[in-house]
Amino acid sequence: MSQIAEVVVRPGVNLELDENDVLEAARRLTGIAHRTPVLTSASLDDLCGARLFFKCEHLQRTGSFKLRGAYYAVTRLPHEARGVAAHSSGNHAAAIALAARLCDIPAHLVMPRDVPRSRRAVVSAYGAAITYCEPTLQAREATLAEICALTGAAVVHPFETPAAVAGHGTAVLELLDEVEGLDMVLVPVGGGGLASGAVLASMAHDQGVRVLGVEPLVSPEAAKSLRLERMLPSADPDTLADGLRSSLGRLPFAILARSLSALLQAEENAILRAMRLLWERLKQVAEPAAAMPLAAILENKPRFKGLRVGIVLTGGNIDLDRLPWVG
Amino acid sequence: MSQIAEVVVRPGVNLELDENDVLEAARRLTGIAHRTPVLTSASLDDLCGARLFFKCEHLQRTGSFKLRGAYYAVTRLPHEARGVAAHSSGNHAAAIALAARLCDIPAHLVMPRDVPRSRRAVVSAYGAAITYCEPTLQAREATLAEICALTGAAVVHPFETPAAVAGHGTAVLELLDEVEGLDMVLVPVGGGGLASGAVLASMAHDQGVRVLGVEPLVSPEAAKSLRLERMLPSADPDTLADGLRSSLGRLPFAILARSLSALLQAEENAILRAMRLLWERLKQVAEPAAAMPLAAILENKPRFKGLRVGIVLTGGNIDLDRLPWVG
Repeated sequence: MSQIAEVVVRPGVNLELDENDVLEAARRLTGIAHRTPVLTSASLDDLCGARLFFKCEHLQRTGSFKLRGAYYAVTRLPHEARGVAAHSSGNHAAAIALAARLCDIPAHLVMPRDVPRSRRAVVSAYGAAITYCEPTLQAREATLAEICALTGAAVVHPFETPAAVAGHGTAVLELLDEVEGLDMVLVPVGGGGLASGAVLASMAHDQGVRVLGVEPLVSPEAAKSLRLERMLPSADPDTLADGLRSSLGRLPFAILARSLSALLQAEENAILRAMRLLWERLKQVAEPAAAMPLAAILENKPRFKGLRVGIVLTGGNIDLDRLPWVG
Repeated sequence: MSQIAEVVVRPGVNLELDENDVLEAARRLTGIAHRTPVLTSASLDDLCGARLFFKCEHLQRTGSFKLRGAYYAVTRLPHEARGVAAHSSGNHAAAIALAARLCDIPAHLVMPRDVPRSRRAVVSAYGAAITYCEPTLQAREATLAEICALTGAAVVHPFETPAAVAGHGTAVLELLDEVEGLDMVLVPVGGGGLASGAVLASMAHDQGVRVLGVEPLVSPEAAKSLRLERMLPSADPDTLADGLRSSLGRLPFAILARSLSALLQAEENAILRAMRLLWERLKQVAEPAAAMPLAAILENKPRFKGLRVGIVLTGGNIDLDRLPWVG
């Protein structure tokens, strides 16, 4: 069963960015990021008792919305930076590598030794340098600091770098532009970068809407953090939604504590079922994290009854040899 | 390896339909069939050395282009018909069931006993009556004749009924409307209904293009038939592309003999590889038959070098528990 944590709205927190940053990011991303399509499915609508609009960021360049934040952040690097650096085992790595190539600057990626070969191949193909480290957050951060000291590169973080958060928000800005009369937007929450960007996008748009987040029930630290008004780390949760294994970031904490309408939790079986429905009914190869909003709706139908709900399909990078419902 | 059979163009064959039928079908399908999106992939373009435009008919209602032909044919049934009847184990069955429901007439489907449960469920959900028979073409046709005699329903065949062929062509008409300067359109060939509709659509459009077909190499009877100028049956070929197990129809034979630019063959491993690429790079859940054009391009790259190629992704109905690359 899923649970809903109502979040206390605390106005007046000083943020490092506002809605104008999302509008500026949208201008910079024009012609760079794909304006991804919005798909609907009568059969999923029937199943949910709501009207769902899926913003297809799994069809974004590099296969996830992270290209948006990575590119915009790279265009905003300090002048003295000699390239960009990041640690990532997933979508952020590919996004940074492509963003750097598009801006014609060097990229340095720190990746854990156990990163799948296909991931390395993508990053290398974009011409980024890779440094491998032990698969712990501590080792990743220490290695990244060394690389920066050595090369003079500046770090772009997917949810602590303000420009990255603003860039992510452009996905929701486009969704609000394209679909009239949305009642809310639902996004998965890991570090909270996309949810934060969505909140800023909603503020930037004439037809601002409520933004709701969904995190894995096995690791409900984001909801706890927001409820207790202090940040709790999550300890590498064992969730299908492997894109969401980060703890809520400091910057997202500040933004979401002020403006997120609610944070829902999705149970693992519900994530699996929702992911399969996205493949079967919407015919889209979406990651488990991308299925979190649909999972939350299916587990909380009365709450969404009759509403028009925007959903960001965050990514589609998945190992087709290891589908979670096979074997 | 794939092979190419150049087809002799024989002008002057009398057809039962022409390009105006496609235009009329397009008018009747407005607001009924989805205007499906066209997707592109820089990574697939690089791989192929061509610009590919994928018309997403797997996102059509019922998950395949067949809804187009089924619906238009149902609107053109003789006044005395008491409902519609068809035999099908696949996409045509779902298409006829939905078309009949939309037109508020009875539908009678003859399906082989061994049809997957999920297929039955879809057809039943649309309110169609199902009669089961032995899984042979002979039994299917005999049972269908009985049902028609009993009920007064009229048969709609997916590639022998002229209006169905005209309806299928509307998918290609939309593709030509949306993408300028296509050099050719590539479609899979089983019974030949879509290829025939594509030829008519090309004739109907200002920017008419060459239409090329692709059939499974394990069963190259369509190419042989066209080359020998007489129809050869294919004996239930064992191909991954299970949507293409029909022999070329009489009506398609007449149309394609006159107007198809070429018929290519795709080898089974190439089909599997292409299907996987559609899932991995385009993030689309497409059937094996839908992967035939990409397979043919990958096996014949020099022929397509630098060209702008339209491809119809014909359907996306596949058992996610039995993916061809798993197990």
